[in-house]
Amino acid sequence: MRLAVVGATGEVGRMMLRKLEEESVNAEVLDLYASSRSAGSCLEFQGSKIRVQDLNEDHIKRGYDYALFSAGASISKHYAPIAVSSGTVVIDNSSAFRSFQEIPLVVPQINGHLLENYRGIVANPNCSTIQMVLSLYRIHRRFGLKTIVVSTYQAVSGAGNKGINELTDQEHGSKEYKVFVRQIHRNVVPIIGDILDDGFSTEEMKMVNETRKILDDDSISIWPTTVRVPVMFGHSESVFCETVKPFTIEEIRREIVASDDVHLTEEKITPIEVAGSDTVFVSRLRSFDSHRFTIWNIADNVRVGAATNAVRILKRHAGGAK
Amino acid sequence: MRLAVVGATGEVGRMMLRKLEEESVNAEVLDLYASSRSAGSCLEFQGSKIRVQDLNEDHIKRGYDYALFSAGASISKHYAPIAVSSGTVVIDNSSAFRSFQEIPLVVPQINGHLLENYRGIVANPNCSTIQMVLSLYRIHRRFGLKTIVVSTYQAVSGAGNKGINELTDQEHGSKEYKVFVRQIHRNVVPIIGDILDDGFSTEEMKMVNETRKILDDDSISIWPTTVRVPVMFGHSESVFCETVKPFTIEEIRREIVASDDVHLTEEKITPIEVAGSDTVFVSRLRSFDSHRFTIWNIADNVRVGAATNAVRILKRHAGGAK
Repeated sequence: MRLAVVGATGEVGRMMLRKLEEESVNAEVLDLYASSRSAGSCLEFQGSKIRVQDLNEDHIKRGYDYALFSAGASISKHYAPIAVSSGTVVIDNSSAFRSFQEIPLVVPQINGHLLENYRGIVANPNCSTIQMVLSLYRIHRRFGLKTIVVSTYQAVSGAGNKGINELTDQEHGSKEYKVFVRQIHRNVVPIIGDILDDGFSTEEMKMVNETRKILDDDSISIWPTTVRVPVMFGHSESVFCETVKPFTIEEIRREIVASDDVHLTEEKITPIEVAGSDTVFVSRLRSFDSHRFTIWNIADNVRVGAATNAVRILKRHAGGAK
Repeated sequence: MRLAVVGATGEVGRMMLRKLEEESVNAEVLDLYASSRSAGSCLEFQGSKIRVQDLNEDHIKRGYDYALFSAGASISKHYAPIAVSSGTVVIDNSSAFRSFQEIPLVVPQINGHLLENYRGIVANPNCSTIQMVLSLYRIHRRFGLKTIVVSTYQAVSGAGNKGINELTDQEHGSKEYKVFVRQIHRNVVPIIGDILDDGFSTEEMKMVNETRKILDDDSISIWPTTVRVPVMFGHSESVFCETVKPFTIEEIRREIVASDDVHLTEEKITPIEVAGSDTVFVSRLRSFDSHRFTIWNIADNVRVGAATNAVRILKRHAGGAK
């Protein structure tokens, strides 16, 4: 398999390499690309050192089977179509193509069938969306979802190395902020992305639009509030759902337990315990009635919410192509 | 006016003293009580030093006009009725009496009329509840509230000095925790209080029961998730509401603006900016339709959520008694 990773030195890019190793993906060729600032440095993969190359149009046309992109929306917009033109399947972690009707937005456990006989760009969803739909997809299929109210507690690593460094610097006394719109140390910041005219943020609208697209149901009414918290790794979500059909809490429990790569626990579980895992952890399932329930939902945002899902897309596509 | 403060050395107790000063409350007598561990120390009030006394049954029967209690539910249960028996009006910050039908649970801006000609114990509500009902009471009166889904981001000072110290110690490398059920530094903990049989926590059920009691409406369906975050001062809340009657967003805006001690802002506002204020700050008001909206609601939990409300009760009661 001939592979490229674009944005290889970033938080998600490096985790993609680690996931490719963990999954023992057999790469005959593995080319790593980054901005000219990071080009020339070396990253380890399966015991050997690989030099990071400068991304340019000639390089990305080298005819890879798969290119994993995680270098921001503008890089994806420019280079992903070029890669596709040389026959490469692009798995894009940015938001550049997610809303395009003809582009599959894939969480393999839910809608992996979209990858069958597909070639082109595959969009990797937003981190907060992936972990939420993984916990809800079986409930959606069985009972229908009418309304979702979700409030997030998002780790600084969601903003990459820069986010981690900004929190660390502030812990050591820095008062500067530029990655987040306010100080994040000893604080919570209820704005991620830009605020749109109707008052919702771009991050919130990703959760609205991507959840509907992945679950293939535009009738779900989704009310997100996306919030940054001073946590390094692990996004948490307080998720309230109203279903179309009535349920017993035991039925909801069974659907969550049966969901792929989701673990329902009675434990007091927090982001610190979840960091480093490829599983979504659901706790605090509870309800006052037969058509509404609420859960606490945590996953490692860099893994489940980005790199792991991208590599799962790759493996599912590669498996389906066999 | 003859005053006593029980639990004077705690986080809320000390803020009660500061609020009594700020409001220029004229105390002929001000006795401060604490556990024997803190008795003997001195606290400043209006320029003089006051020695903290050991609380006992004889002391609390000295015939105060008002006693402000903030020393935990078990102290209140024992000593508040004794104080009342000697003619004192007790303003109790603990949860000991809040659910008793005959005990008024008061946020003066909302149901201060309950204080007229009342003598006995007045309960000061839970911190998260006070700031939420202050932002919603006018909306409730005009449009009715059918459902509230609230997720909190609660500061460590809500657990008093001990909570502040535990976060500070962990920031300096301690791995121990006993105030919170998990590490709070670089983490969020979705359990406050005890988990009850139905899966809701005691803190969450306070929000359910106290909101209904203060707004005098048991028909409101309330779904809280209460979460501790590594913030020193300032509770934040992501609040979603469904109303009985339809509204325009401009009407909701006007009701919030008209609410006493509530400030609606377009600014990007976070707990750090709100700490030290007696105002509730509402931002991010938004909606997709005509019967549901969502807001971000912040207040200083030690002030608005405890000491300020207690002193407002005192002033309102004292004013009404004139």
